[in-house]
Amino acid sequence: MAKTRIAIDMDEVIADSIARFQEWYGLDFQIAITLEQLQGKNAYEVVAPEHQAALREYPNRPGFFKDLPIMADSQRVLSEMAQRYELFIATAAMEFPNSFLDKYNWLQQHFRFIPWRNYVFCGDKSILNADYLIDDNAFNFDNFRGEGILFNAPHNVHETRYRRVHSWLEIGEIFL
Amino acid sequence: MAKTRIAIDMDEVIADSIARFQEWYGLDFQIAITLEQLQGKNAYEVVAPEHQAALREYPNRPGFFKDLPIMADSQRVLSEMAQRYELFIATAAMEFPNSFLDKYNWLQQHFRFIPWRNYVFCGDKSILNADYLIDDNAFNFDNFRGEGILFNAPHNVHETRYRRVHSWLEIGEIFL
Repeated sequence: MAKTRIAIDMDEVIADSIARFQEWYGLDFQIAITLEQLQGKNAYEVVAPEHQAALREYPNRPGFFKDLPIMADSQRVLSEMAQRYELFIATAAMEFPNSFLDKYNWLQQHFRFIPWRNYVFCGDKSILNADYLIDDNAFNFDNFRGEGILFNAPHNVHETRYRRVHSWLEIGEIFL
Repeated sequence: MAKTRIAIDMDEVIADSIARFQEWYGLDFQIAITLEQLQGKNAYEVVAPEHQAALREYPNRPGFFKDLPIMADSQRVLSEMAQRYELFIATAAMEFPNSFLDKYNWLQQHFRFIPWRNYVFCGDKSILNADYLIDDNAFNFDNFRGEGILFNAPHNVHETRYRRVHSWLEIGEIFL
């Protein structure tokens, strides 16, 4: 029987892109964005209207996805899951074409046990043929053919339709 | 009912990458590679052993995928198919990370009627959740969940396991 196939999102699931928003916004405007402010909202909604355009541009700016911090326990849990499951990394990179190489290099550096053949840079994640998708954006589950598992993030706290996990330890409890 | 979803490969299906091999090899070694030589073979097999390494490097060299010629009738037929079907472009770009931006820009330039949300840069095409895959590499059909349609190319002439099409006109006859 074929191995169960699990697709895993990058941003806010294995890579801490919120940290980069906080860092660059702090550098540009000397104002902190806190995780408390971000509950139920995305970063664009918590900054002054005159700063929104700058913030929206950050992910298009070269370097945004470079050297992102790694989400806690994701390497260890995924390296164990790689022994039992077929793992794919599935990221909506098409929205930010300047991110392609940074994302590829980041995966090669930090998740070498997942082969590049199993990277998917896409837009619409309904194209994924997988049994599970671990993602922080619930809209990616709407037309997904497998089961969506919502990775807890500040912006998605009000989402109730999908199974929620709060950490990679919790994912390990489910799959290992 | 959801629209039938068709995934379409890039190289040797909508983009003429053989033309680039011929062009660059001719510039480097003043030797022509002919389509007759390529019957049942890939380009690496028809050049002198001491030239193989150079040839293998071409797709990694920046610019290889830039300005590739467009395969005959592919734009017109696909623009009509886009009215009736859900079209995705699915290319094994992960093998050549330097190709990402060139491929993205080429699609934006020549196939604007297919939205970037429907681009998939991947390695293993078994990750595609689609009804059809039009591709010149039969190995991509082995674990594909839909039906593979083999786009005729010199290297695949001896492949007999899949339905073969010889042109975009023939694809139009099937789908339009």
